[in-house]
Formats: sequence, C-alpha cells, structure tokens
Amino acid sequence: MPLHGKNIIAGELTALGSKTFRVYAPASGGPVAPDFHEATIPETDAAMAAAGMAFPLYRKLPPATVASFLEKIAQEIEALGPELIDRAVLESGLPPDRITGERARTMGQLRMFAGLVREGSWVDARIDRAIPDRKPLPKPDVRRLLVPIGPVVVFCATNFPLAFSVAGGDTASALAAGCPVVVKGNRAHAGTAELVATAVAKAAAASGVPPGAFSLVQGANHEINQRLVRHPAARAVGFTGSLRGGRELFDQAVKRPDPIPVYAEMGSVNPVFVLPGALRERGEAIAEGLKGSFTLGNGQFCTKPGMVFALEGEDLAKFTHKLAGLTTAQPPGTLLHQGILKSFGEGVTALTQVPGVQIAAQSAAAADSSKTQARAAMFATDGGTFLKEHRLSEEVFGPSTVVVRCGSKSELEKIALGLEGHLTGTIHGTEADLREFAALIAILETKVGRLVFNAFPTGVEVCPSMNHGGPWPATSYSGYTSVGTAAIYRWARPLSFQGFPSDQLPAELQNKNVRRIWRTLDGKLTQEDF
Amino acid sequence: MPLHGKNIIAGELTALGSKTFRVYAPASGGPVAPDFHEATIPETDAAMAAAGMAFPLYRKLPPATVASFLEKIAQEIEALGPELIDRAVLESGLPPDRITGERARTMGQLRMFAGLVREGSWVDARIDRAIPDRKPLPKPDVRRLLVPIGPVVVFCATNFPLAFSVAGGDTASALAAGCPVVVKGNRAHAGTAELVATAVAKAAAASGVPPGAFSLVQGANHEINQRLVRHPAARAVGFTGSLRGGRELFDQAVKRPDPIPVYAEMGSVNPVFVLPGALRERGEAIAEGLKGSFTLGNGQFCTKPGMVFALEGEDLAKFTHKLAGLTTAQPPGTLLHQGILKSFGEGVTALTQVPGVQIAAQSAAAADSSKTQARAAMFATDGGTFLKEHRLSEEVFGPSTVVVRCGSKSELEKIALGLEGHLTGTIHGTEADLREFAALIAILETKVGRLVFNAFPTGVEVCPSMNHGGPWPATSYSGYTSVGTAAIYRWARPLSFQGFPSDQLPAELQNKNVRRIWRTLDGKLTQEDF
Repeated sequence: MPLHGKNIIAGELTALGSKTFRVYAPASGGPVAPDFHEATIPETDAAMAAAGMAFPLYRKLPPATVASFLEKIAQEIEALGPELIDRAVLESGLPPDRITGERARTMGQLRMFAGLVREGSWVDARIDRAIPDRKPLPKPDVRRLLVPIGPVVVFCATNFPLAFSVAGGDTASALAAGCPVVVKGNRAHAGTAELVATAVAKAAAASGVPPGAFSLVQGANHEINQRLVRHPAARAVGFTGSLRGGRELFDQAVKRPDPIPVYAEMGSVNPVFVLPGALRERGEAIAEGLKGSFTLGNGQFCTKPGMVFALEGEDLAKFTHKLAGLTTAQPPGTLLHQGILKSFGEGVTALTQVPGVQIAAQSAAAADSSKTQARAAMFATDGGTFLKEHRLSEEVFGPSTVVVRCGSKSELEKIALGLEGHLTGTIHGTEADLREFAALIAILETKVGRLVFNAFPTGVEVCPSMNHGGPWPATSYSGYTSVGTAAIYRWARPLSFQGFPSDQLPAELQNKNVRRIWRTLDGKLTQEDF
Repeated sequence: MPLHGKNIIAGELTALGSKTFRVYAPASGGPVAPDFHEATIPETDAAMAAAGMAFPLYRKLPPATVASFLEKIAQEIEALGPELIDRAVLESGLPPDRITGERARTMGQLRMFAGLVREGSWVDARIDRAIPDRKPLPKPDVRRLLVPIGPVVVFCATNFPLAFSVAGGDTASALAAGCPVVVKGNRAHAGTAELVATAVAKAAAASGVPPGAFSLVQGANHEINQRLVRHPAARAVGFTGSLRGGRELFDQAVKRPDPIPVYAEMGSVNPVFVLPGALRERGEAIAEGLKGSFTLGNGQFCTKPGMVFALEGEDLAKFTHKLAGLTTAQPPGTLLHQGILKSFGEGVTALTQVPGVQIAAQSAAAADSSKTQARAAMFATDGGTFLKEHRLSEEVFGPSTVVVRCGSKSELEKIALGLEGHLTGTIHGTEADLREFAALIAILETKVGRLVFNAFPTGVEVCPSMNHGGPWPATSYSGYTSVGTAAIYRWARPLSFQGFPSDQLPAELQNKNVRRIWRTLDGKLTQEDF
C-alpha cells in the first residue's frame, strides 16, 4: 500500500496543514515520495487531548489486554514484511541485516514488556496490615502499588528507526505501564514511522484499546516539539538523541507551571581503559574489537567508544599501529542523514585543530558525500592534552575515536575523576590489572551507568539487569534506564490506599493474591494470600 | 551544655561569618540565646567539598557499618534527653507530647533505614547470566544493583523540627543509601538543629564514618540555599516546605549545567469527600474527626484536610453545624513562627473576601498574637464558587478548612477532575457509596498519592507501603515518597556490570549470595546462590 503521508491521531488520518516535507534517502542522496504533512498545532493538541481522554480507560484495562495489545503490535510489525525493511533501509541508509535485526529487537522488546505486565510483579505491591491495638496509636491498613502517570510523549530517535522510534522501547514501556503515548515522528524516517504507527493503530483496534491511547504526529519543527512537551495533558517525555536536543526539551518541561520529567538519553563518549596486562597480552585483539565497536552502525550509537586510555609505551604503540591500520582499511559508510554527516565532518575538523591532537588514521577509500558517506577516523593525543581540552570530552557522533597516551596510573585516575557522566565505561584488563587499578575502577563506578569488562559497549542487551542510563549528560535522570524491563519505571508512580475494604482495591492489593505476584507483606516478600 | 551557635562542618565547629541571628520563641514571642552564626559562602563550599571527598569512602562502607551509624544516631539523639525536648518545644511552640512523639518517630525512621540497609535487598540486585552460544549473538553476563548518587543537600522543614530536619527522613534515607549529607538548618529551630547535628557528628566519629559525610550549615539567606543547590558536588536535594520555596530550589537546580533533582514535598490541600451514606449514618462523628485532623498541630501539616466536599441537603447542614460548633470551641493555638501566623492571617482574609465564601466559624476565644496564636477557622461555600475561584484550591497553612456544598454527583466529579495534585484524598463512605461513586474515586486515583478511606489524612504511617508524595504541586517528582522505606530510592541509581569475574563484583552481585538478599536471577526472584 502506498504511504499516505498523514498524521495518525487516535486512529484517524489527518492532514490539516499545508506544510509538507520529503524524506531524503541518505544512500542515494535524493528526496523520496510521498509528501508528509507536518502536523499543525490543532492536530498536535488533538493528539494530546485524545491521549488525556483515553487515559482513564486505558489505565483500567486488564493487564492481559495490555499484554495482548503489545504482542499484537509485534505481530502487526512483522506482518508489514519486506515493505517495512525496505523503507527503513531506504530512509536510514542502514543495511538490511541491521534493520532486520533491529526489527527483531523491537518485537522482542514489545514481547518482553507484554511478559512483564502479564506476570504483574513490576507494580511493586506492598501491604502493611492494620494493628488496631498498637500503642500509642493504632496502625492503619496501608497498601501501595505503582500506577501509570498519564500521557507520555515519545520522540523518535534518528539512529534507531525501529527499536527507539514509533513502537520502540519508550513506547513499549509506556504502553505497558498503562500510559497513552503520543509519538513525534523523526523527519529522517517518516515513512517507517507511518508504517509502524499503522501497525500500532491496527493492533489497538483489534485489542479493544481506546484509539486515543496512541497517536503519531509528523514533522520537524520546534514549535510542535514545544507544544507537545508543554501540553497540560503530558505527564512525561521520552527522548533519545543529542545533548542539545535533549536539553532543549528538558528546559521546556521544567518551565511548565507543573514541571514534568523529560527522560532524555543524550549519548556519551564511553571511555575505554586498556590496562597494561591486557594491552600486553592481547593488544591486537582489543584493537580489532575496538575498531568493530567504534565503526559499528558507522559509529552512530550512543554507546560508541569515543575515547580510549592506556599507559604509553611499546605495547600501546603496537596497539595504536594496529588500530590505525584497521581504520585505514575501513571502507567509508553511509551516515543517517546529511545533517549528521555535516556535524561529523565538523567534529573531525575541530579535533584536528586541537593543539596536541594528531589524526592517526582515516579510511583510505574516498567517501562520496552525495551518498552521505563518511570516512572512519582515529585520533591520537596525550593525557596532558586531554586534561586541558574539553573538546576531547564531547561526543562526535559517527565513526571516530581518540586514543589517549597516559603517562602514569595517577594520570589515568585524574582523567577518570574529571570525566562527565557516560552511559558506559569499559575496562580491558587481566585479573591482576583489576586488582592494581581498583582505585580507577572505583572512580569509574561513579561516572557511568554500565561498566563493561573485556568486551565492548556497543550492543546493548535487553534484559532486567541492563542499565542504559548514566549521570548527566548521558541521561537527564540517572535513576532510570531506557533499555530493559526497568525502563517501565519512568512511567509509573506509587499510589497508596489506606483503610479500604479488600474487595474495593486493585486486584494486586487484595487479600487473596489472585495474580500470584510477588508482594511485600508486612515487610516480607511473598506470593501468598493472607 | 550551652549551645555554641556555630556551623558543624565535617566534624569541625566553624563561625567565619560576622552575621548572626537569634531564634524567636513563638509561645513567648521573644528572641532566645544564643547567637547563631550564619554560614558564609566559603563555609558552605567547604561543607559541600567535604561531602564530595567523603563520598568515595562513605559509599564503600560495609552495610553493617552504615546500619550501626544510623542506630548510633538514634541513640545519641535519645541521649540528648530533656535538653532536646525543651529546646524543640521552645523553638517550635509545639507541646512536649508532640515533640516527644516526633522524637520517637525520628528514631524509628533511623532504625527502620538501618534495618533496610542491614537486610540489603533494597539494592534491587538483578543478574542475567551469560549464554555464550545464543544465536544470532552470544548473551553477555550482566548484573545490576542500585548505588548511591553522591552528596545530598537536605533542607530542614519548619513544621517537623525533628522528623524532617537534621536527622529526619531525608537525612536518614540518604545516609542509608550511601550518600553524604549537608543539612541546611531552618532558622526557626537552629538550636534544635545544632543539638541533633552534634549527635550525628558524634555518631559518625564513633562509627568510623568519615566526618565529611555529614555537615550542618546554619542561616536563613537565599544565597546560601542557591549555593548549596548549585554546588558541583551536589547530586540531589531533599526539601519539605512551601510550594514557593520548593519551586525556587527546583528552578535553581534545573538551570545547572548538569541539572539535579530537587525532591520537594510542597504540601497540598488534601480534599475530603464525604459521601451521602456516610454523611447520613455518621456525619457527627466525621465532623469530630475532621475537626481533630484540620486542627492537629494547629493545622501545620502538609496532609491537613483543607477542603471538604459533600452533596448539599439536610445531612450536610447538620454536619456543617456540628463542625462549626467544634471549631468555635477550639482554643487558639501557637503557630510555628510569626511568618506563618502572618501568612495564615492573610490566607483567612483572602478567603473571606472571595465572593460566595462565608466564614462559618472561628475559635471563640481571643488569640494573643504576641504568643503567635491563631484562631481555627472554618469556611463554607458552594460547588459553583469553588469551580470558579482558584484561590480556594490553594494551601492555607494553619488551622482552617473549607466545606463545599455540591449540587450533584456530576459536580463532585467535575470538581475532582479539576483538582491539582495532592498528597492525599480522603473518602468517607459506606460500601454502597463506594460502588455508587466509583467514577469519582477513579478520578481521585489520578490526582493524589494516597487515598484514605473512612479515616483522616494527618498522621502518616512510616512503613514500606506508605506513599507521601503526589502529582505536582504536592511533590516535584510524583514517582517518589519522602516517608517510608521507599524514600531511599530518591538517592540511588542503577549501575550495571557486564562480564566481570564474580569475585570482583560488589557482594550483592556475586554468584554466592552471601548476604542472602532477594535478587532477580534470570528474571526470577530468589535468595539462592548459583
């Protein structure tokens, strides 16, 4: 079916505005049909109002219905078949294998949250029974669970057209929590957004979910972003993108008469520390892994390792030589869009101009900028320069990394102490290195959301123990992850009931534990009734 | 021992500033000795820097040490004996019984958090084991726990000189989480603050806790508040007080280059709905309970019921008559300080001037304003006026409440829909009322943090299931409570470890579950080793 280019608001197609745009296909460098209608302010308001109206119904749906809805979304996405894969490849320039893998991850996430909701213990039910004869005061019966906060605005990520876009991790976790979602499409992949949104709307209709529980507004203007974030019905925002973009939304949200949280995952530079034992024993293998990691998806991951620290010496020289060779041999790759190509070029130029920084290697093959291609780049510098030049601590989105030669263990520690927040920190080391550099690792624990040992930070496992978040500027609220089951907690808040008859309470809090969830009963975890 | 009037910074007494102030005793209306030295900017910075330096040590202390420290604080507070009670009574104007009860609550909170830390499951440990032969990609070993975020700034609450001040719920939960704390004393009870801070410092010294883990800065100027909230070492803020005060701190914190959360509990008006069956069956008893609740602590609780809704008719007329009589008979009470007396007076006057609002009753006895006394006040109005006049939805801190006569069930629902966020919502009803007014209760669920059935919202039980928080403006982040064990989550964030050898991990994440905590192992809760 041809793309219609319209907004999808509570199940209805709308195109009230006269402003349209086309997606540019990065690999061919040309605009592709159809015209997409940018949402107007009234359409944006309508989407938010519909979400607000749907909330009382949606939040009361049985967990089994919500779970089926999520599973049905996965099914409908799969049913889009090659049309979705082709369009996402066209719009992102990413290879079909990657997009197919991302689709699998997206469906996996939807099913994971379906499982979480069906099982039900995520609501963290807590029951403290009354003690009427307690002295000096009687103890009341208090019971608590987590409830959805209300309508959530989700901004599609440029670098994940499926897994962090229309039905990606933010949407899946918010819908799972019981929150209606209004998605703002990313103009770089508006057609992919339309296809996936159609699948979600279809799944809603088939699952008895109120249509207002999901809308997609298309466009690329700041006014609509602001309107969404400042709309009275909005209760929280999910965002994955740049620090600048995330901060803009954050600043809007905190200026509201009733501030709301913007859960922004704003990327990071992901320091890698290659400790002496590991460098000596398997420096070449680490260089190979590192090259694979910093060029994966052409370096367009928020977990791309963009800074590498090691003690100077012969082992590091060998490592650097190896990495330079691999970088030179790396073919240029197509970036997501011309804007990213431009920023990447500027980032590379800026690094080249920092005194004390050398460009150690670049892809030997020429890049065709009309095909949005960029050459991989590897820089080298020393610890003193790194400590002096803040520019080296800023994210360069794309296939580049900086190797920093450090003079001593204490310089490594000083560098670690000065780091801002990052999503990940990676350590390559032997067990002896771990012992010797325990102080360094202790510092890194306070700087990142995930510590990786003898592996690479790209490739984020979706599981209960994953933390994809970190101190500012990695994310806006370091208490939350955007990947894994715990991502649901961004969209929920506690609600206590005091003194209610058991049968008037939500099922999760009644005396008989009909859902067999884990509950904290008088301070002890149990699945029992009472 | 006489009070010294100095700041207590990392165990040292300091008085660098020349600016001093005295506490006014509200019941006598006079200033009392000694002079307190307002902290200077260098002293404020020193306290924050000491907290930052102490963090790496403090966060690595064994849980048993932290638990003993908290228990030792409780002991030292108790050891202050009548000196503490007398000073807190003098400074707050609250009766000795209340202060003694508050001291018991404060010690109870410290011991509760000690128990939580000693048991250890609060870190929400999650372990997903590796599956090296998974297709298409191997599954890595990922393990996650909650870790402390870093130094926390706590502002003492005016209305809880013990339970929400120097060693109150915010401090106890932050210290329990592993965060150093810098407390900003409240100028209304600086002597109480000094006594308690001395107890904390003593407990730290006796427990092997680095002195920088706790400091008290005294004073009353905004510059110091700002400095604390904007200090680079600060990672979060705890505050209990007015909307204006909380918003001010919030606005400072979000303007930082690296915004931090201000967990502000800013009070609320706590709507009470008296449903027809209950009004008919036990209207007089409810009136008695309500009078007790809105005048408890002279109405100086954030859970004070300040608005009461019921359907008009004979039963409501009887209820109103009864409540008016009780209010008239209520003796005037001493408020916490002259500033609160003034605001209360202004609030009462403002309500009197709203067209359609009648003052239904006031304490008959005269109030002595030189003793900071206020008369209880009860207002009456109708639903239409309430819907029109936002003034009626604003908190009046002190012994007052407004009874609103509503015309219909749908008017009650309309009023509920228009409510802002509140800490609590109370329903008095029969089981038949609950069924008939299910829609009203469903609305209230989205507006408050705690729903109370057939009881009153004052008197907040400290337990795992308590939620003392709610949608803005009740609190700044509705996902968190400031009372009960869950209060600890404000000061923690997840940290994942990927691929680490078991013996290099925090004890909570090692294969052998030495601490026997509950952990989520491959998605299942268990206390087992593996």
